[in-house]
Amino acid sequence: MIRIQKEKHIELIVDVLTKIGLTSEQAQMASEIMNYADVRGIDSHGLILLNTYIDRINKKIIRKNPNYKWDKKSEIISVLDGDHGMGHFMGHLAMREAIKIAKEKSLGLVLVKNATHYGASGYYTELAAKHKMIGFTTTNTMPLMAPTGGAERILGNNPISFSIPRQNEDPVILDIASSVVAAGKLILVNQKNEIIPEGWALDKEGNPTTDPNEGYEGGGTLLPIANHKGYGLALIMDILAGVLTGSGYGKNVGHSDIGFVMMAMDVDQIMPKEIFNKRLDSLISMVKSTKKGNENNTIYLPGEIEYLKKKEREQDGILINENLYKEIEKLTLDLEISIDNYFS
Amino acid sequence: MIRIQKEKHIELIVDVLTKIGLTSEQAQMASEIMNYADVRGIDSHGLILLNTYIDRINKKIIRKNPNYKWDKKSEIISVLDGDHGMGHFMGHLAMREAIKIAKEKSLGLVLVKNATHYGASGYYTELAAKHKMIGFTTTNTMPLMAPTGGAERILGNNPISFSIPRQNEDPVILDIASSVVAAGKLILVNQKNEIIPEGWALDKEGNPTTDPNEGYEGGGTLLPIANHKGYGLALIMDILAGVLTGSGYGKNVGHSDIGFVMMAMDVDQIMPKEIFNKRLDSLISMVKSTKKGNENNTIYLPGEIEYLKKKEREQDGILINENLYKEIEKLTLDLEISIDNYFS
Repeated sequence: MIRIQKEKHIELIVDVLTKIGLTSEQAQMASEIMNYADVRGIDSHGLILLNTYIDRINKKIIRKNPNYKWDKKSEIISVLDGDHGMGHFMGHLAMREAIKIAKEKSLGLVLVKNATHYGASGYYTELAAKHKMIGFTTTNTMPLMAPTGGAERILGNNPISFSIPRQNEDPVILDIASSVVAAGKLILVNQKNEIIPEGWALDKEGNPTTDPNEGYEGGGTLLPIANHKGYGLALIMDILAGVLTGSGYGKNVGHSDIGFVMMAMDVDQIMPKEIFNKRLDSLISMVKSTKKGNENNTIYLPGEIEYLKKKEREQDGILINENLYKEIEKLTLDLEISIDNYFS
Repeated sequence: MIRIQKEKHIELIVDVLTKIGLTSEQAQMASEIMNYADVRGIDSHGLILLNTYIDRINKKIIRKNPNYKWDKKSEIISVLDGDHGMGHFMGHLAMREAIKIAKEKSLGLVLVKNATHYGASGYYTELAAKHKMIGFTTTNTMPLMAPTGGAERILGNNPISFSIPRQNEDPVILDIASSVVAAGKLILVNQKNEIIPEGWALDKEGNPTTDPNEGYEGGGTLLPIANHKGYGLALIMDILAGVLTGSGYGKNVGHSDIGFVMMAMDVDQIMPKEIFNKRLDSLISMVKSTKKGNENNTIYLPGEIEYLKKKEREQDGILINENLYKEIEKLTLDLEISIDNYFS
C-alpha cells in the first residue's frame, strides 16, 4: 500500500482533470468529492474511478465544458439541466441551490437531469448538514437489479442518503445503496477466486448463485435489500431521479443521462435549534447506550465509521493499493505530469 | 371465516367508535382507514385493532375530543399538534393540508405531534396520488428494534410510504416497515407453535433466535431490513417523525405521543402531466415486462397485490376469522349494538 496525503490527493485529481480539458470549476468539485470518499474509506467512489471518468470524458459521454441551464418551477423547486457535465459539479451546484432556497423558504428541492455519475451521495447531504439543514439525495444509476421475480437488469441500485445536523458533533449521515452489496464487491471476490453468500445476487437466469462472476460480470443481477422492499425503494428513487427530472430511467439509464434529487430543510425554521439539538442528543444517547448483544460490539451511528476513518486518514494519509498506484503512474506519465509532485 | 361487506365494515366501526364517545369526525376517519387496510388484505391494520383502540380510548391514551392546533412554520411547512386524538383523523387532516399547500406552492410538508397510531401508511400517500401528487409519509412507532449490535428495543420499525400517481391506473404505492417482518407475524407463528427463520429477530440477549416467543413477546428485538441499513432508515425516520415534530422519540415513544410526517409534491408543477404519465408508463412497462426468473413468477408493482385483493374483497366482502368475529360479537353486545346489522 502507498500513502498519499489528503491535500496532494486533491491536487492530483484537479491537475489530471484540468490537463485533459475539464473546466477548472468541474475539476475542483470532482476532486473535492472523490477526496471526500477516499478520506472516509468509501474507496469505491474515490481515486479508483479517475480512469473511468477520463475514459468517459474522452468519449464525450461527460462534456468538458457543459452549458448547464436552470429552470425554476416554483419558489421552492428548480430543475438543473446538467448538459452531460461532470456529475459532482452538477450535484454540488444543485444541493447549494436547494440550501439557498431552504434558507429563504424553509425547504428547497432541486432536480437534476442529463448529468453523469455524482460519486458519494453522503457528500451532498453533509453539505446540507453543514448549513444546519436536514439533507436528502438520491440518484439513479446503471441498471443492475431486477424487480422481484425477474432475471434482467431493469433498475439501478439507487442510493438513499439523509443527513441530520448536530451541534458540535459530526452529523448523522445515512448513505445506503438499495442492493445488498455493491457490484464492486462481487468483482473483488471474483478476483480472489472466492464465493459469495447466497442473497447477494442472482445469475442471468434468475437463480440464486454463490459464483461472483455469474452474479455480476457474467450478466446476473444484484439482489435488492429485503427483496421486494429494496426493489420498491429502487423503483421509487428511479421515478423521482429519472422520470420526474426528465433524465434517463429504468434499463435505459446511460452514463450521460443520470438524474439526481437534492432536498434541504432548514431545521431552525421548524423547531428552534437549541430544542432540536437537545432532543436529537437525547435520542442519540439512547442509541449509543443501548444494551449490547455482546460486550465487544460497538453501536455506531450512520456515518460514524466513515468519520473515524476520516480522522485516521487526515492524519496518516490515504492508502492506495499497488494496482491503483500503477494506473495513476501510467496516467500521469501519459499526461506528462510528474507523479512525484503528489506521492513523496 | 365470516364475511362482512365493505360498507357494513365501515358502518360497524363508525357505530362502535361513536358509541364509546369518539367525535363523529374521528370515528369516520378511523373507520375509513381501517377499511382501507382490510379491503386491501393489510389485515394487521384493520378491524383487528378495534379493541386495542377502544382500550386506549377508555384509558384516555387516545382523547375522545381532542383540541388539535395548527402551527404554521412557513408558507410550505405546518405542524399539527394532535392533542392525543385519533391518529387516523390527524393523519388525514395533515395529508389533506400538505396537498392543499402543494396545490398552491408545488410542495407541502406537514409534521404531526402528539398523535396516536395512524394505521396503514399507504392510505395517506394514496390520498396524495388521488390529487395527482407524489406522496410521502413516515411515522414512528413503539420501540421494537435495536440499533445494529444492540439487544434492547430503542427504535420502532418505522414505516416508509411513497405513492406515485398514474393516469387511468392504480397509483404505485410503496408501504414498507423497516423491520424484516412485523411483530404480528411472530405472534401468529408462536400461536401455531412453529419456528421462525433466522434473520427475523434476536432474543433479549441479542442472539439470533428461531423461537418466535423469544424474538418478540419474550422481550427480544425485531431485526431491521438489511441490518445497519434498516437501522439507519428507522433512526432517520424517528428523527423526522419524533425529534423534529416535537413528539416522543426512541425508546420513549408511547401510544399517545406518536409523530408523523406528510409530504405532497404536485407533479404537474414540475413536469407537464402528459409527459410525466408517458415517461412513467414507459418505466412501468419495462418493469412489468422484465424477463422472468421462472415462468410462473409474476412481477408486481409496489401496491399491486393490495389492489388485486381490493378488487376481490369489494365484490366478495372482507373475510374475518372466527376469533375476531367473537371479539366483535362481545364488543357489540357490551355496547348494545346489534351485530346483525352488519353481518347478515
